[in-house]
Amino acid sequence: MAEEYPVTSLDTDALEAVRLLGEHRMPGLVVTDKDGRPHSVLGASQVVRFLVPRYVQDDPALAGVIDEQFADKVAEKLAGHTVRELLPEDRPELAVAEADDTIIEVAAVMARVRCPLVAVVEHDTIIGVITASRLLEHALPR
Amino acid sequence: MAEEYPVTSLDTDALEAVRLLGEHRMPGLVVTDKDGRPHSVLGASQVVRFLVPRYVQDDPALAGVIDEQFADKVAEKLAGHTVRELLPEDRPELAVAEADDTIIEVAAVMARVRCPLVAVVEHDTIIGVITASRLLEHALPR
Repeated sequence: MAEEYPVTSLDTDALEAVRLLGEHRMPGLVVTDKDGRPHSVLGASQVVRFLVPRYVQDDPALAGVIDEQFADKVAEKLAGHTVRELLPEDRPELAVAEADDTIIEVAAVMARVRCPLVAVVEHDTIIGVITASRLLEHALPR
Repeated sequence: MAEEYPVTSLDTDALEAVRLLGEHRMPGLVVTDKDGRPHSVLGASQVVRFLVPRYVQDDPALAGVIDEQFADKVAEKLAGHTVRELLPEDRPELAVAEADDTIIEVAAVMARVRCPLVAVVEHDTIIGVITASRLLEHALPR
């Protein structure tokens, strides 16, 4: 049931990782550590938070008066950063399942961690992911 | 920038809505009220939480000893319920943008609500959604 899924790592260039997110139209990327073990999830909305200035987050009405090009801002803000720096400090626990887990075992992990994405590992190496919608599609009677 | 997106409503049959989520492989569905105004987001992981028995969420190890078919359980648990009943009580605020908002205005709403999905409305009616990854794709210099 595991899906092909773009993976990035802690030390990957931030701009490269964000481009991957955008290209694949994924809600998040699994981030691995230097040994290829799943470390965390970089959510697309977390990247958006990184890009929006703090004072605009506090008062979104201010967004209307910013006349700079957001696109220029994106490249500029990401330049020279790594994926590690995009991750929130209070990042949620990563949901991980073993390749031979049953559907209900995967569902249980997903439910507990409240994460729409479970990394699937075999011998400590990530081999794919399962999204919540994929799990539902698989579990529903046809 | 708004995307075509499957929409459901508070009084839609739960099984029908979950089937829609699975078919479109979406991380969530926008839920409208009876007047077609966006009301909330039904996340795929929230549905998984609804389906996994409480005692398994508290102790995922128990999932390994359940020998019933999860697929049978899914149809049975959803039967006779509506989308309204799937929504969590502490459901997060829905992020809403106007059709003529700028990218940074959409990004600001997304960042504040920490939601990877913004409903786009025109004259109070939903005309599409913008996902965080779509926004990043659009904002990145090519």
